[in-house]
Amino acid sequence: MYRNFAIVPNIMFGRGAFNQLGDVLAPKRVTEGGYVVFVIDDVFKDKPIESRLPIEGDDLLLRVNVDDEPKTSYIDKLVEEIRAYKDVVPDGIIGIGGGSTMDIAKAISLMLNNPGSSADYQGWDLIENPSVYHVAVPTLAGTGAEISRTAILTGPVKKLGINSDYTLFHQIILDPELIADVPKDQWFYTGMDCYIHDVESLEGTFINEFSKAYGEKSIDLCRQVFLEDHKDKDDKLMMASYFGGMSIAYSQVGACHALSYGLSYVLGIHHGIGCCIAFDYLEEFYPEGVKEFRRMMERHDISLPRNLTAGMSDESLDLMVTTALGLVPLWENCLGPDWEKQMTRERTLELYKRM
Amino acid sequence: MYRNFAIVPNIMFGRGAFNQLGDVLAPKRVTEGGYVVFVIDDVFKDKPIESRLPIEGDDLLLRVNVDDEPKTSYIDKLVEEIRAYKDVVPDGIIGIGGGSTMDIAKAISLMLNNPGSSADYQGWDLIENPSVYHVAVPTLAGTGAEISRTAILTGPVKKLGINSDYTLFHQIILDPELIADVPKDQWFYTGMDCYIHDVESLEGTFINEFSKAYGEKSIDLCRQVFLEDHKDKDDKLMMASYFGGMSIAYSQVGACHALSYGLSYVLGIHHGIGCCIAFDYLEEFYPEGVKEFRRMMERHDISLPRNLTAGMSDESLDLMVTTALGLVPLWENCLGPDWEKQMTRERTLELYKRM
Repeated sequence: MYRNFAIVPNIMFGRGAFNQLGDVLAPKRVTEGGYVVFVIDDVFKDKPIESRLPIEGDDLLLRVNVDDEPKTSYIDKLVEEIRAYKDVVPDGIIGIGGGSTMDIAKAISLMLNNPGSSADYQGWDLIENPSVYHVAVPTLAGTGAEISRTAILTGPVKKLGINSDYTLFHQIILDPELIADVPKDQWFYTGMDCYIHDVESLEGTFINEFSKAYGEKSIDLCRQVFLEDHKDKDDKLMMASYFGGMSIAYSQVGACHALSYGLSYVLGIHHGIGCCIAFDYLEEFYPEGVKEFRRMMERHDISLPRNLTAGMSDESLDLMVTTALGLVPLWENCLGPDWEKQMTRERTLELYKRM
Repeated sequence: MYRNFAIVPNIMFGRGAFNQLGDVLAPKRVTEGGYVVFVIDDVFKDKPIESRLPIEGDDLLLRVNVDDEPKTSYIDKLVEEIRAYKDVVPDGIIGIGGGSTMDIAKAISLMLNNPGSSADYQGWDLIENPSVYHVAVPTLAGTGAEISRTAILTGPVKKLGINSDYTLFHQIILDPELIADVPKDQWFYTGMDCYIHDVESLEGTFINEFSKAYGEKSIDLCRQVFLEDHKDKDDKLMMASYFGGMSIAYSQVGACHALSYGLSYVLGIHHGIGCCIAFDYLEEFYPEGVKEFRRMMERHDISLPRNLTAGMSDESLDLMVTTALGLVPLWENCLGPDWEKQMTRERTLELYKRM
């Protein structure tokens, strides 16, 4: 049985495409007395990008903080805030930022039309009602959040996405100019999120020609961006991110993403840097990929934090192992159906202890 | 101003995916006493694929003939036939076949919801009402018809597509097993349609990183299929076709497709072989591409018809030139905004006379 893969149905790509956001939204403003919510990373507070937002009438500018990765409690609070702001459901939710901000925009657009707490929907296909129209405007490239069917959230008992076709954005605007000023470390870590999931997808057991075509082109673009010099590197990285996300369609990420989830859940380490930290110890899984990753680190003079788990209690380490091993499809993709025989708690713990 | 590119929102890929067509259609069967129309190339009459169709209740099996490329008069006749069959609009139109059959399915699904003749809508964005839900099941790979926003038709005064976002299929099912038994010549010509439009897209002046990423991977897959040996060559060719179609998003085809339209319109030559015939004389436009194309021909022992225009009247040649030069965006992409200075009627005529 093959999955019927749902894709974001509208995409605009180009330098300066952000200027057309107002035109894209115009036909969606259908509710009398309605409004649109611009969910924007608060790092952009009073920055030029805010003044370029096509805000009209009662539109709401909702600055969000992503110092920590988004929590279900934070989503619930934001949804309450929007409900209190006006009696009607907004005509659109526009997410402007990196993966976390896009995940917040996705989760809000789902929760406005579904009862209860966002924590109730962490899992697969638990959402019942379609989401509010929502648009992705990435200002970071690599996560693939613009194209994925998940809104990754940290809940009271787990870090797990709201996975559903309704989670998908209705529209993506890819404007490479928006990623030009990202700080170098963040640019690198987020780009590596893409590179690493390409490796995990291409080396995985789930791969088919659809995912391979996207994954191979994505990794090719990552190599151009991180190992060569191209004046249109921002365009290339945006396409790498999009293709990387598409590659996961019939595939999955693998060992590195699973271990990174543990680092995030227990230590609050952000996803991109968490992937880099974990990947550096995964030669036994991805020998070629790790070698190339190190060349990329060297070229961009990146040094990773070390000894993160040194002072941790056994309980915390144990929770980290449980978190990582709970991601069954990732391990299945990485090691095949008998992954549990190969990926014991001991082996996982040993890996974490080296980080 | 960038185009807001619409994409077919659902895709299923895999060997045997055709078996899931019934499951895909089930939730779309919403009208009481409703039905689905299976538009299938009559080359499959009484072949196994017909018996595998998930036909239920009042569903209509509509065998279509594509010995000639689809004419607007043929579309109008088929639409009348469907309207006469039942009072209600069908719940779905399923196109099973090559580019021509898929174009017929697209055109029918548009015309069932729009008044008048299909000839009235040849052009860009003339369609007013959304199409009936329609599904592509390609049995040939290369045209990109499964993903394109055009239904190419030969009308009383021109060969020109119905171009609109409503033309897009709602669902694609890509089952590489369905293209395994295509006769070699047809396999080659249709595959070359893809290879040639990759060359035209990548060498064109409209190219951006979005179209480049798709075009480069598509041409890479074409090379694997036509210059190497791979047991999963059918999977690769299906992806090449899909990626080739996506590449046209922000790009265009070029000189070869323009000239091929003239051959089709005046001589009734099918699109794929028409592209091959024309491309062989276009070294001055695409030197590397033509060289590689000849290697592919040689490897697969293909010989093209020659001297097609030898006995033609001046009027017919003139009409062919007019048809080709009427495709303004194709020439603009190929030669830039001052294309008219370079691509005179004389030069076009000379090219045709060599074919």
